[in-house]
Amino acid sequence: MAKDNQFVSQIADIEADFPQWYTDVVLKTKLVDYGPVKGTMVIRPYGYAIWENIRRELDDRFKAAGVENAYFPLLIPMSFMTKEAEHVEGFAPEVAVVTHAGGAKLEEPLVVRPTSETIIGHMMGKWVESWRDLPLRQNQWCNVMRWEKTTRPFLRTSEFLWQEGHGVFESGEEAESETLSMLALYREFAKNVLCMPVLTGRKTEKEKFAGAVATFGMEAMMHDGKSLQSGTTHYMGQNFAKAFNIQFTGKDGALDYGYTMSYGVSTRLIGALIMTHGDARGLVLPPPVAPVQVVIVPIAQKKEGVLEACAALKARLQKAGMRVKVDDTDNSPGWKFNEWEMKGVPVRIELGPRDIENGKMTVFRRDTLEKSDGYLLSEAEERVAELLGEISAALYAKAEARMKERIVNASSLEELLRGVDGGNFVRAGWCGERACEDKVKEFAQATARVFDEEHNDMPVCLCCGKKAAHTVFFARAY
Amino acid sequence: MAKDNQFVSQIADIEADFPQWYTDVVLKTKLVDYGPVKGTMVIRPYGYAIWENIRRELDDRFKAAGVENAYFPLLIPMSFMTKEAEHVEGFAPEVAVVTHAGGAKLEEPLVVRPTSETIIGHMMGKWVESWRDLPLRQNQWCNVMRWEKTTRPFLRTSEFLWQEGHGVFESGEEAESETLSMLALYREFAKNVLCMPVLTGRKTEKEKFAGAVATFGMEAMMHDGKSLQSGTTHYMGQNFAKAFNIQFTGKDGALDYGYTMSYGVSTRLIGALIMTHGDARGLVLPPPVAPVQVVIVPIAQKKEGVLEACAALKARLQKAGMRVKVDDTDNSPGWKFNEWEMKGVPVRIELGPRDIENGKMTVFRRDTLEKSDGYLLSEAEERVAELLGEISAALYAKAEARMKERIVNASSLEELLRGVDGGNFVRAGWCGERACEDKVKEFAQATARVFDEEHNDMPVCLCCGKKAAHTVFFARAY
Repeated sequence: MAKDNQFVSQIADIEADFPQWYTDVVLKTKLVDYGPVKGTMVIRPYGYAIWENIRRELDDRFKAAGVENAYFPLLIPMSFMTKEAEHVEGFAPEVAVVTHAGGAKLEEPLVVRPTSETIIGHMMGKWVESWRDLPLRQNQWCNVMRWEKTTRPFLRTSEFLWQEGHGVFESGEEAESETLSMLALYREFAKNVLCMPVLTGRKTEKEKFAGAVATFGMEAMMHDGKSLQSGTTHYMGQNFAKAFNIQFTGKDGALDYGYTMSYGVSTRLIGALIMTHGDARGLVLPPPVAPVQVVIVPIAQKKEGVLEACAALKARLQKAGMRVKVDDTDNSPGWKFNEWEMKGVPVRIELGPRDIENGKMTVFRRDTLEKSDGYLLSEAEERVAELLGEISAALYAKAEARMKERIVNASSLEELLRGVDGGNFVRAGWCGERACEDKVKEFAQATARVFDEEHNDMPVCLCCGKKAAHTVFFARAY
Repeated sequence: MAKDNQFVSQIADIEADFPQWYTDVVLKTKLVDYGPVKGTMVIRPYGYAIWENIRRELDDRFKAAGVENAYFPLLIPMSFMTKEAEHVEGFAPEVAVVTHAGGAKLEEPLVVRPTSETIIGHMMGKWVESWRDLPLRQNQWCNVMRWEKTTRPFLRTSEFLWQEGHGVFESGEEAESETLSMLALYREFAKNVLCMPVLTGRKTEKEKFAGAVATFGMEAMMHDGKSLQSGTTHYMGQNFAKAFNIQFTGKDGALDYGYTMSYGVSTRLIGALIMTHGDARGLVLPPPVAPVQVVIVPIAQKKEGVLEACAALKARLQKAGMRVKVDDTDNSPGWKFNEWEMKGVPVRIELGPRDIENGKMTVFRRDTLEKSDGYLLSEAEERVAELLGEISAALYAKAEARMKERIVNASSLEELLRGVDGGNFVRAGWCGERACEDKVKEFAQATARVFDEEHNDMPVCLCCGKKAAHTVFFARAY
């Protein structure tokens, strides 16, 4: 039975070498492959199907909130980038630039969008005339490019897929409120679709989006205790409205600049869910986004009636809204078990002649590795749907328990270092000075992730000892 | 009532100046806007919603056919482009090139994909080892870029959105068969979703895809009798497999190159349906892709109960699966009628106090401009769904009748010229020589669209008088 274990043995040990485990898992499960240009990825069908599920779930939520989809051009005139001073400083170092097209040198170089505040600001400036045109709330699903030095599939690649939502409002209050609403939408989505608990809150000046007044982040704890920024929302005030002349006549007849905001999540979320739920055997996919939610493995599949029974069960489960696959390849059942476990399919059903005779089926759940043969075939739809729901809840509960266990308080740099070395998020007071934030980074390779806005209770700065302005979650981060 | 006609008067006369009518309609209905870089477009929410409907309908068909979605990188090494000799010749003149990224000059320039046969060929070459890996059938929805000199929104823009499907097969027969299956899929889709009749068939060597063995096209007749290429499928033989080393071990143990094919449609389809169905009042959208299928216009909307009745009707129709909007803005009903007619909404329901009292509603259909007040409110779901179906059928029948009426035979260049001048497609014999094809272009500004493979009955070449090899549909084309 050596063959049966070949996959498990090919994956690095998750505890001993988590980065290698990650690389092994994403490549061997065929989620992704390296593209020919350094830092690029090819999202393979199994990975892309996860992205399609993420996109559909989020898109439904945006539409229910009244946001409309649109599509803006990939190439942005270089001069746009320089109109907002902080923005160009933040993004210029990592843009890819088109200098030639149609066989000739361009008069003005064009930037491949790293994000679209500038070009969308330009267009919205054309469209908005009066308060009647506001709010304007649009979103696009597209590719963006940021030339990064160190890359890893899904987590950081030169090109990635994302959505970016952009809003213009009459007042700063409305724009800020939308910024927080979208953060709440992301949080609900992370919980109910990715089964992933997150910390949400405001970010420091150092960590904020280039050109924003305030950035809010959603941070998730990975298996190794490091943090992954999984989504951000930004309140821009009038910065971009002034740079791109988004002006409107208000109800009072006066001309004013609009207030803008933006928000985005990306294919990075695929990395987030892999590193949140994965285990020694490979992927553990949350049912709401799993491309295959139930795999049916026939036992003694050459025996009469077995494949037919599997097909009939598949049809019933599909009709009940589940994503189901029958693995009728000529590999051994053991080989199939390993393969689908590595690929993280939430539920496996084994169906052989004896099961069929007894009107039962054997059910294996990927998250707990528990196997049960007490399921009645006649109740398959209800029981399997129920089980998928239980798995989602259990994945969230497990990740939440881990995160809660691994948040520790610190009152000094030494305590913080001990905390992050132990794979924890560290809550600590911070005076608000950049120098102290830099010192934390230097001392512990940890960064301020988000403010703990619910409990701002740490009295002094962990670095300088002065009165704390904020309680901050610090962590090492991807 | 001058205001009521303001939209109609803003659109150029469809018969007198069709190009201007097109530009007026796409801009004034807010389907699209010009981007800041010459030749680019912004697809606005009303246009993008049409694209989402097109994409969903096609994507469902691809998935039902067993094709999987994936995503490949935007940037292609320049060296890839040159590996297939015809391919580089065809696309090199119109590519956009990234020469700098991350603040430095790149060692090798990167091309923004004009199409992805090269990079997908490269990846498939990595993935395919044996006949067990075949067929490999993948599709991506993405943006592509072709630096065109003359551009027009949707029809020809430097960047556009499309899907490109790519397959590798064990044999040429299988790859050719898939090429024709996908052409048939496009044809069925054009008929049932866009309500658009098309001619399908093989293209000449001159008109084929750069690097293909054979290209098949789907051509549609626009309002002015010109043709719009609306989709293409390509059989590549082993051309790309050899260039990108897509090799596999066959069932017989021998090593062979795969046979590849590809197929694509783009946002150009939005232009196609506008120019197929539009009329003097503006857009006429086919129900299957219309972002709003039914608009409800309240009459005397300030009267008690009117808006409530409109909202209740909307909820009922939505529940029955229709896309519905109530226009409760404070514009006059006449203004709303004009606006939604210009925007091409298939069905308008007018609902006022008297209608509500009588349990009836007034229904206007956009395609025939007929108004009827005989509809019972209690039967709204069935009757409106029925009407949407009738409209789809009528749109197709009308466009098909026009196309059939406007296909004429020609036996000489003069006859062909008269035909295309009269806004017709012209069927004519052709010897197969490039010189004669070029002469048609020079003499009549018409090109060979597709072969008439069902009826290859024209005996002699319209140009040289020699025996005809093919009967060809010639037309002026967008």
